[in-house]
Amino acid sequence: MAAVEMQAVLSNGDGTLRISRTLRPTPKGTEVLVKVRSSGLNGADLLQVRGLYPPPPGWPEDIPGLEFAGEVVALGEQASNTLLGKAVMGIVGGGAQSEFVCIEQSNLVPVPKGVELKAAGGIPETFFTAYDALFLQGGLTLGDRVCIHGGAGGVGTSAIQLARSAGAEVFCTVRNEDMHKKVQDLGCITLSEEEFPGSGPYDIILELVGAKHLRSNLQELQQLGRIVVIGVGAGATSDIDLRTLMAKRACIRGSTLRSRHTAEKTILAREFMRHLNPLFASGTIKPIVDRYYSYKEASEAYDTFKKGGKFGKIILTWPT
Amino acid sequence: MAAVEMQAVLSNGDGTLRISRTLRPTPKGTEVLVKVRSSGLNGADLLQVRGLYPPPPGWPEDIPGLEFAGEVVALGEQASNTLLGKAVMGIVGGGAQSEFVCIEQSNLVPVPKGVELKAAGGIPETFFTAYDALFLQGGLTLGDRVCIHGGAGGVGTSAIQLARSAGAEVFCTVRNEDMHKKVQDLGCITLSEEEFPGSGPYDIILELVGAKHLRSNLQELQQLGRIVVIGVGAGATSDIDLRTLMAKRACIRGSTLRSRHTAEKTILAREFMRHLNPLFASGTIKPIVDRYYSYKEASEAYDTFKKGGKFGKIILTWPT
Repeated sequence: MAAVEMQAVLSNGDGTLRISRTLRPTPKGTEVLVKVRSSGLNGADLLQVRGLYPPPPGWPEDIPGLEFAGEVVALGEQASNTLLGKAVMGIVGGGAQSEFVCIEQSNLVPVPKGVELKAAGGIPETFFTAYDALFLQGGLTLGDRVCIHGGAGGVGTSAIQLARSAGAEVFCTVRNEDMHKKVQDLGCITLSEEEFPGSGPYDIILELVGAKHLRSNLQELQQLGRIVVIGVGAGATSDIDLRTLMAKRACIRGSTLRSRHTAEKTILAREFMRHLNPLFASGTIKPIVDRYYSYKEASEAYDTFKKGGKFGKIILTWPT
Repeated sequence: MAAVEMQAVLSNGDGTLRISRTLRPTPKGTEVLVKVRSSGLNGADLLQVRGLYPPPPGWPEDIPGLEFAGEVVALGEQASNTLLGKAVMGIVGGGAQSEFVCIEQSNLVPVPKGVELKAAGGIPETFFTAYDALFLQGGLTLGDRVCIHGGAGGVGTSAIQLARSAGAEVFCTVRNEDMHKKVQDLGCITLSEEEFPGSGPYDIILELVGAKHLRSNLQELQQLGRIVVIGVGAGATSDIDLRTLMAKRACIRGSTLRSRHTAEKTILAREFMRHLNPLFASGTIKPIVDRYYSYKEASEAYDTFKKGGKFGKIILTWPT
């Protein structure tokens, strides 16, 4: 039988991309094959195509993409046949920016009712990340005062909605002046970088920007407060005053999803289904999409992402 | 009625001490009055008498001392009369280096069976601290690989014993060459400061020394590892690489006991009774005492503490 091919975004390893045909993966065991309808862009993709953030072992080296939504079109020999034809979404270690993706069936989440398949491809990475960071890492609870550094992007807009839905009081720093109104409409108070010092104390600070905030983060932290670091695009190293950390009985935690084992992603997928799908279905939370691009325009999409100043997600769409 | 006096260690505010008579406290409400038999010395006392670490509100300004053991000799009007005459120990926000101390009855722990009252005054601060840091802050569990920086002191020798008792594999850095054998006899592997890099990965690193280890601590940390900082005598500020923190999904937590509310100390006292008293009674763990000094020799005791190189606790004893 001739090898079956598919279209995919392929990294040239120097920051540039090409759209090209490549081998379609084959689902084995409990894996399923998903025909991708949409795939969100993430900061990690930009690093990966520059050769700076190689995928974890077992994932495609040259196809970026950490999230997708689509339809199950084929099954591994042990996968459940009830999945065939279902609208699903999920996170993968790489390879989601292609026509087809293989994934363990247990890592799938059904596309929530009322959400378009086109938009759903921008949900998993940012909402998994925001949910994990705020609730599982940060222990967010009713009435917590939360600050999110970098509120306008994909994770930021997801985190604002989730924190608000859980009864937190949410503040956000937003660098782009023109973006404040849009971010406020998600239900939070926006701050410029200059307004952050003195705006605390916060129970949780979600750091999506970089180490430059670390000193003021500690300063603005409440007793027993938690700083969760999941983005350091604007710099990774900083001074830290451990005496303040002790006096506040505070905690600084770093986290990342990509390298996690399939089993951990399964647990996260189940939490997602249980806690987030109903919120999507009721319209309490929604994917925020800045712009859709056809997969053929992937280079333009990456350029737009790189420029910054987007509100929510940039999503590549694939033919139905 | 004439005011009743007592002997106490009094700070001159410049690092020197005097032994002097001062007003004896009166137990109110659910407080009890303890006639102190022994009071351990701690790093915080040295800072306090230099005017660098004032006690939290409500505790004596000029009498150092965070821990004691003794006998209940008087009761506040709501305290339980079953306590009268009982051998007890506890932590306070200050004032324990005196003949008498007042404390909330719920913060007391009975002196464990088989432990001398003279030695018990050196137990609470170090064992509360080590228990809290390893188990409540660090989440220590069976089979964890633990490293303790500064293993020879009061908290260090307590932490080694507790971690060993819980089934951890314990490593310790010890600065003083001559001390290694004694520390090893507590059931751990000792390392010089130079041997620490490359000795990991560790699930928990307990930092009792200072910020200078922070970089290598992160380097030697296992995935999902925890650094718990409870001592920064040798320096409080350092660089930190948040990218490593993220990649290891690690956590850095600071903690301190002294400023905690009475209610929190009550919870800790109950945990102590339940989890640690049986271990003392069975001889599985024991207070490690470097040397006893009469309260009249407090200045010498402080000087010895300051010099470093002690193994376990330095304890002041008070007349029976």
